[in-house]
Amino acid sequence: MKKDYKLGIVGYGGMGKWHHLNMDRVERVTPVAVCDIDEAARKRAEGFGLKTYDYIDKILEDDEIDILVIATPNEFHCPYAIKAMEKGKNVICEKPITTSAKNLEKMIKASKKYNKVLSVHQNRRWDKDFLMVKKVLDDNTLGNVYSIHSRVMGSRGIPGDWRAHKEHGGGMILDWGVHLIDQALYMINSPVKDVYVRMQHVHYTEVDDGFELVLTFENGIVYTIEVCTSCYINLPRWHVCGDEGTLVINDWSCDGKIVKIQKGKENEDATPIEAGAGLTKTMAPRTDKSTDELPLPTIECDEWVEYYTNFVNVIEGKEALLVKPCEAMRVMKIMEATFKSEEKDKSLEVNV
Amino acid sequence: MKKDYKLGIVGYGGMGKWHHLNMDRVERVTPVAVCDIDEAARKRAEGFGLKTYDYIDKILEDDEIDILVIATPNEFHCPYAIKAMEKGKNVICEKPITTSAKNLEKMIKASKKYNKVLSVHQNRRWDKDFLMVKKVLDDNTLGNVYSIHSRVMGSRGIPGDWRAHKEHGGGMILDWGVHLIDQALYMINSPVKDVYVRMQHVHYTEVDDGFELVLTFENGIVYTIEVCTSCYINLPRWHVCGDEGTLVINDWSCDGKIVKIQKGKENEDATPIEAGAGLTKTMAPRTDKSTDELPLPTIECDEWVEYYTNFVNVIEGKEALLVKPCEAMRVMKIMEATFKSEEKDKSLEVNV
Repeated sequence: MKKDYKLGIVGYGGMGKWHHLNMDRVERVTPVAVCDIDEAARKRAEGFGLKTYDYIDKILEDDEIDILVIATPNEFHCPYAIKAMEKGKNVICEKPITTSAKNLEKMIKASKKYNKVLSVHQNRRWDKDFLMVKKVLDDNTLGNVYSIHSRVMGSRGIPGDWRAHKEHGGGMILDWGVHLIDQALYMINSPVKDVYVRMQHVHYTEVDDGFELVLTFENGIVYTIEVCTSCYINLPRWHVCGDEGTLVINDWSCDGKIVKIQKGKENEDATPIEAGAGLTKTMAPRTDKSTDELPLPTIECDEWVEYYTNFVNVIEGKEALLVKPCEAMRVMKIMEATFKSEEKDKSLEVNV
Repeated sequence: MKKDYKLGIVGYGGMGKWHHLNMDRVERVTPVAVCDIDEAARKRAEGFGLKTYDYIDKILEDDEIDILVIATPNEFHCPYAIKAMEKGKNVICEKPITTSAKNLEKMIKASKKYNKVLSVHQNRRWDKDFLMVKKVLDDNTLGNVYSIHSRVMGSRGIPGDWRAHKEHGGGMILDWGVHLIDQALYMINSPVKDVYVRMQHVHYTEVDDGFELVLTFENGIVYTIEVCTSCYINLPRWHVCGDEGTLVINDWSCDGKIVKIQKGKENEDATPIEAGAGLTKTMAPRTDKSTDELPLPTIECDEWVEYYTNFVNVIEGKEALLVKPCEAMRVMKIMEATFKSEEKDKSLEVNV
């Protein structure tokens, strides 16, 4: 008979609750307990019939728990994860896994020492829009891809709690950057050779409230990540250029398209157009006489099922981990290079 | 009685002909002669009743000519302009004014020595879309602007003549970059402190066929210029973010809008939305309950009239030049920093 795994959740804010409520879809994993220093949060958890604890050391003494989700402010991920593994729990950290490569090394060491599974919940590897772009690259649909823009834009500023403060691991690089960098590294099979960032401090001085980050991969792809929290008209979520076509995905609803050049029509002559106070032949638009429009590929997946089923299978020694600590380490190194690029105010040569 | 100025045109290709055909609108300037090494080009000019010459030295001997437009491949701008000023002509170069700061210095020296007016036809300072953005910045409509994206995208590659070759001053930095850099420097009243470029070589190795150029101004504005000649789905021509609103202009037809936050509604709470495989409060969209949509400002201008009328008034000592050689020098220095950034494969600190 298969073992049923019991889940504990440390930090019952937005993400902690999100883990809890989505666990229905996951066979073999049952949420049983929550730890939060906030009484109101504990009351909410009790309302769902969960056990509650007000202090990390108490939930770690709960021997029923096999898997602990850590969804606290970022500064606590490292010490809590290490303690938890020492106490025999397998650990899933909310992203970012921690706030420095040095911390992550300690966590990986603890994972090996106590033989416990450690992973980070990089849920946005399962975003449909991302999986569509990845499939288009894997299938070589656009020919040789040379430029990728990944953009997430909002106008709400930084959520008004710990995320605005440096000591708690706040700022948009650590909040959204960690997802979008992870997607980039997971999608492109090449080391990053150059990092350049322009941080935004539109409404916050202590941490970045947006950024433009240019990652240049050794294979030549220039991958730009833009996060903005003070933008009132959004640009498309994705814009990907290959030498044979372009992909656009406008938003999370995955509205978008692919436009490809028809073979043999590349050099079809263009009539110069009047554009502003000038003429242009170079930028003259094309018609459907030389291009084809393709739909985006179809993607079917369920993040929670895939992520947790894999995690359980790893505990049982049946599968390799989908989101590996060594991958989190690459993301962490790029984030550290990003902060260094800001501090030194220049581009940085890297090999990550 | 006011003097009528006679115009000569060297290089009767696309731009040379464009100067000729638009001169009808300009009072006091009359095209009279063309010089081109190509017989077919001369025949076309003769068809319009113009005198023609097959060699630069011959048109320079034509004493009727007061103003000479140089619309040849870029490498000839400098030697022809200097010769022309020596022969008593006032000179308008097509852009780029020349291919290096060193050449430009020589041209400026000649302009002073022979007391002739030298300018460059930066016609895109009169693009309506650009003037709209400039007005929005000048009027402070978006509050404190922190990010500007200026994009020109096409899929025609580099026009198939001299523009694909380095020795003739080809490539997109010198073709479109020169316009978009000039617009940036003319719009933002601050020195550039940092230059970073990612050049594209999608279909051409000798010169760039596109680029992403990040200019950071000392006042904090990050101004990104993107030119692409292998793109099948265009992004908006302009995307400008201020702390109080955003502007988008989609294309040269000046379709676009401004969206501004309503005062006092900045912190209106947002409901988290499901976005891909996650939740987000930060990126939750706004409704018109907290934002206002404004039309783009109205712009009326006629580039040819303004440019040439000013040029004539400068010859007569009545006005200051609209497009000054010292401004062209700033643009040239940024272009040189751009090529250096590519060569060194890193960002460059500058003071331009």
